[in-house]
Amino acid sequence: MGCGIITGGGYVVGDLKFVDRFEVTDSFFGKYEKLVREVVLPYQENALNDRIEGAEKSHCIENFRMAAEKLRTGKCDGEFYGMVFQDSDAAKWLEGAAYTLAQKKDAELERKCDELIDLIGEAQHEDGYLNTYFTVKEPDKRWTNLHEAHELYCAGHMIEAAVAYAECTGKTKLLEIMCRMADHIYRHFIEEGAEGYPGHPEIELALMRLYRCTGNERYKELSLHFINVRGVNSDYFAQERQKYKWSVWGSTGDDKEYAQNAAPVRMQTKAVGHAVRAVYLYTGMADAAGETGDEALREACKTLWNNITQCQMYVTGAIGSAYEGEAFTKDYHLPNDTAYAETCAAIGLIFFSNRMLYLERDGKYADVMERALYNCVLAGMQLDGTRFFYVNPLEALPGISGEAKTHRHALPVRPKWFACACCPPNVARLISSIADYAWHEEGTTLYSNLFIGGTLDAGEKLGGKITVCTEYPYDNRITYRFAPLQETMRLSLAIRIPAWSKHTVIRRNGAPVACDIRNGYAYIEDSFGSQDVLEVEVDMRARKVYADSRVAADTGKAAVACGPLIYCAEGADNDGDVLSLFFKEGGALTVGEFLPDKLCGIRQIRAQGYRVEKGDGLYSEQAPVFHDCEIVLVPYYTWGNRGLNQMRVWLPERP
Amino acid sequence: MGCGIITGGGYVVGDLKFVDRFEVTDSFFGKYEKLVREVVLPYQENALNDRIEGAEKSHCIENFRMAAEKLRTGKCDGEFYGMVFQDSDAAKWLEGAAYTLAQKKDAELERKCDELIDLIGEAQHEDGYLNTYFTVKEPDKRWTNLHEAHELYCAGHMIEAAVAYAECTGKTKLLEIMCRMADHIYRHFIEEGAEGYPGHPEIELALMRLYRCTGNERYKELSLHFINVRGVNSDYFAQERQKYKWSVWGSTGDDKEYAQNAAPVRMQTKAVGHAVRAVYLYTGMADAAGETGDEALREACKTLWNNITQCQMYVTGAIGSAYEGEAFTKDYHLPNDTAYAETCAAIGLIFFSNRMLYLERDGKYADVMERALYNCVLAGMQLDGTRFFYVNPLEALPGISGEAKTHRHALPVRPKWFACACCPPNVARLISSIADYAWHEEGTTLYSNLFIGGTLDAGEKLGGKITVCTEYPYDNRITYRFAPLQETMRLSLAIRIPAWSKHTVIRRNGAPVACDIRNGYAYIEDSFGSQDVLEVEVDMRARKVYADSRVAADTGKAAVACGPLIYCAEGADNDGDVLSLFFKEGGALTVGEFLPDKLCGIRQIRAQGYRVEKGDGLYSEQAPVFHDCEIVLVPYYTWGNRGLNQMRVWLPERP
Repeated sequence: MGCGIITGGGYVVGDLKFVDRFEVTDSFFGKYEKLVREVVLPYQENALNDRIEGAEKSHCIENFRMAAEKLRTGKCDGEFYGMVFQDSDAAKWLEGAAYTLAQKKDAELERKCDELIDLIGEAQHEDGYLNTYFTVKEPDKRWTNLHEAHELYCAGHMIEAAVAYAECTGKTKLLEIMCRMADHIYRHFIEEGAEGYPGHPEIELALMRLYRCTGNERYKELSLHFINVRGVNSDYFAQERQKYKWSVWGSTGDDKEYAQNAAPVRMQTKAVGHAVRAVYLYTGMADAAGETGDEALREACKTLWNNITQCQMYVTGAIGSAYEGEAFTKDYHLPNDTAYAETCAAIGLIFFSNRMLYLERDGKYADVMERALYNCVLAGMQLDGTRFFYVNPLEALPGISGEAKTHRHALPVRPKWFACACCPPNVARLISSIADYAWHEEGTTLYSNLFIGGTLDAGEKLGGKITVCTEYPYDNRITYRFAPLQETMRLSLAIRIPAWSKHTVIRRNGAPVACDIRNGYAYIEDSFGSQDVLEVEVDMRARKVYADSRVAADTGKAAVACGPLIYCAEGADNDGDVLSLFFKEGGALTVGEFLPDKLCGIRQIRAQGYRVEKGDGLYSEQAPVFHDCEIVLVPYYTWGNRGLNQMRVWLPERP
Repeated sequence: MGCGIITGGGYVVGDLKFVDRFEVTDSFFGKYEKLVREVVLPYQENALNDRIEGAEKSHCIENFRMAAEKLRTGKCDGEFYGMVFQDSDAAKWLEGAAYTLAQKKDAELERKCDELIDLIGEAQHEDGYLNTYFTVKEPDKRWTNLHEAHELYCAGHMIEAAVAYAECTGKTKLLEIMCRMADHIYRHFIEEGAEGYPGHPEIELALMRLYRCTGNERYKELSLHFINVRGVNSDYFAQERQKYKWSVWGSTGDDKEYAQNAAPVRMQTKAVGHAVRAVYLYTGMADAAGETGDEALREACKTLWNNITQCQMYVTGAIGSAYEGEAFTKDYHLPNDTAYAETCAAIGLIFFSNRMLYLERDGKYADVMERALYNCVLAGMQLDGTRFFYVNPLEALPGISGEAKTHRHALPVRPKWFACACCPPNVARLISSIADYAWHEEGTTLYSNLFIGGTLDAGEKLGGKITVCTEYPYDNRITYRFAPLQETMRLSLAIRIPAWSKHTVIRRNGAPVACDIRNGYAYIEDSFGSQDVLEVEVDMRARKVYADSRVAADTGKAAVACGPLIYCAEGADNDGDVLSLFFKEGGALTVGEFLPDKLCGIRQIRAQGYRVEKGDGLYSEQAPVFHDCEIVLVPYYTWGNRGLNQMRVWLPERP
């Protein structure tokens, strides 16, 4: 939304750019948006209100009610229940609902949002403070456990919701609430000079959004403050624990990698610790680098992004190799079956990459967004939208996955709502705001980063609408058509050429266009009329992918990809046994017809391969016997939708 | 020792059979025995007495001194220090020292042992109770935390030491001390009917040894009691915690797999939980089955042994796939880099297999003993005897192993003495008593289970000595020569034919012998004179080994073995990079000359293979490029002796 909301005067550019300007109409993302609107958000609203039988209790809304009651009457019945960051579930839900409302009016949904916002307002203290955990349970401990207590994290998510709701609906009540909270935080940390920085980054990126929405420079200043002080006193969390002597989970604060505070942020060179915290922090850093032009910060962001994507990222775009600490581990340590690979971390990597793409117009950032989105993030949600993976392993071994102590986290089928409900609403808010990732705008240049079918209102400046038609990711053609307000629209359309597409052709009205290709984008600057058709053909042949030999888990193995999709072998298509399958080196990969009824619409890939005969015992000295076979592969994001069965992304390969 | 020690009268057969009758003289085990005698035991004696700079403090002997002082004076200065089972370190050291004394007189060592035994005696209460943790630290809590406090475990180890010391030196003071402790335990659990069973099994097998040494049936009864009550009330540990409300490590007692108490032992079918506890328990069960003829117990032992060796054992004979709980996990879950594979667990598997071999004369049990001994157990000790691995992974990745949170346990180089010093003295006592594993005797049949060069006193019954000459495991010939007391010795010599030896030839005085081969043993029953030479030639060609395809970590991979030895590739011999190596399917494996100066004397194996070129980035779409290369392999037990470098047992294989 280009106009922004003016709360305190001043120049305002707004934060959202495309959410209400791009109507998704394709059968792939259109279906996901519909699922979010019709299934995910209503399900989650029920969950937050504890109306789902058999699911773990959320108590999230009830916590707000209790806080409101306490502020009104001085006391409340019952006790706070849930995670210390339970408030953020409501925030993420509201944010997703806001984007959904921008796409399609829904009076009932809007009424629910408004009621929730009223309740949130009632739970706010006169001084602007808002956090039900502290209001209900620990009223005297505000700001004394930045390490564990997630006050700034919850504030950050509610600020994001406030910005989104204001920009999508024009209603500013939540924005005003959160400006008061941000002002409160400003007083505490800037004016009163309180020490510290958040254990879980999020406020940094949220304050930047709030700044862009309101134009209030103090929010930018506060965001920069939290970025700049982080890790300068790397003992802060340990000192805080010593000083205030209370703890949520018993953390001593000694592990400085966990929350990325071992060094000042500009000196950090490797992604470490809790993966979600890391990428939320880096997103805020990249945002700040963009807003301030801070070169050192930009360089740190590039170094960290390169470290993640060149040394610590799964082929599915997942990050976080270890359950312990939900964390990055070491370069090239990418175990498949015990991966943590949290859905939220992949979402955070998309945030970070999206921000990097604002800093540097390089298609590699969009490539990573696409990789994480179409593989890890979509795998996080069951195809029917009712169950979610938090952990997205690249190998599932029934009997071991979800059962062995080392694999308790790596479930082979998606569970219902979790007590820690971070991922489901995160998926919802990403999908419902996907337009802001698909499109960027700079001057008269429109960047088409992701190939999603729909109609874009290019605005008055560019003068018209652009319609994208595609059945991507199951079709290799993307066409752009123009509906100028005047005779023609003059613009530079920058179309991302995915690095995986070895042969990309761009045609204008059937004739190849010689275009300026720079850093992964084809720039086509011209005037376009309503008869013009730009057609992009990407190379959607199936291909094999090989990992660096330093990735011990993948030596001798290959994965299969097709377009943006990583494929996997599941037992359901392969006689129940995936572990005995080998790809044939150089063997044919045949992409099948689109099957509308299989796994909500997919193309399978058939790969030439082998199946090894079982040997004589646990360790056999018989040379293995191989038989030719055909391996059936399905897109990774669809795995685990057909009950308990083996799954493998990386299969050994032999000539 | 055939005679046994008579403490309370009755028929006594003794427990040790060969420790003082078999003088090891070969250059392989002879060297290890010497290392134990000259380096390991003195080093450990210094460690137990806190005389090693830079090593973690043991305090073990000091705990005994404090307990003695407290019993003498009613109080003592200082505090108990170390693990709750710290006493067992002294016991295991004493046991190893006893076997060493049986091999070679050493007045100084014997004096140290006698002094320690005097001290142990002073630390014993009048009622027979002996445990320094409880005497010094928790005098009122005896027998109230069987789950965690290791009282019965420590008693078991000291009983083993007592039996060994009595049988090896003829000195019975420690035996009398431990009979009093066993009598005390008998009174508590049998006469007074106290409920419960040990959290860490060990007492069961120890009491059986005490029974065989003393002939006292009550010790057998007590052993059977602990076996029989285990898991009958599977809630015992949880109830104990509820009742007595104290804990060493905070265990609730709810995890019934950890200590193998989810079901009565005869109903257990899969090896679960803490691997050392498991195999110590199963050893006691097998011993009991042998002593009582209990068929249900025998069947349970067979089922459990089969489950371990057919579904849960590494190719090195290691067991315990997970650090968490130092535990078995699930069938076919055998990760290489994160293996726990504790040295003590492999030793316990040798105990268990040795006991199974008494139950059933089947070479498969000796095959497993040999596999665990020559690979996992010997790898547990640095070649110079001064450092030890507790954890024996099959893949070491510098930068990840020992560093990533998931790999903190899997060190790539051996550390010094640990605070938990279970493994080093366990290695010492196994090596110094190896004769009891190498040889079994039944009537006039002598079983040659392991091929160790030395001279056996076959005793008066068989009438003479047998000398085994071999440079095994680096030579494929084992010769048996006879020195009869009379003209000839009449006996049945049962020589194990290893399952890995595809062509085994037995010659008598140069001519092939047609012998009765049953269940992995060649039985040669005859009279042998001093001119007779029996020569066994096993098939010592290098060979490839393949894991069951259900072992996800090893699909597409091969390991190389030669005789009893599993080989591995280390960076030190392979340009620092093992992860890019592939075996050539059907490629030559060339066993090299014996290199006396390399890694204390080994043969290398050179394998035809390939090295893959590094691709273009973390994920490359270029088909990998392979170059022919020669892979140099060394025996697994020698890995990690040349500083930090990569190591891999399983390499991918391609045609």
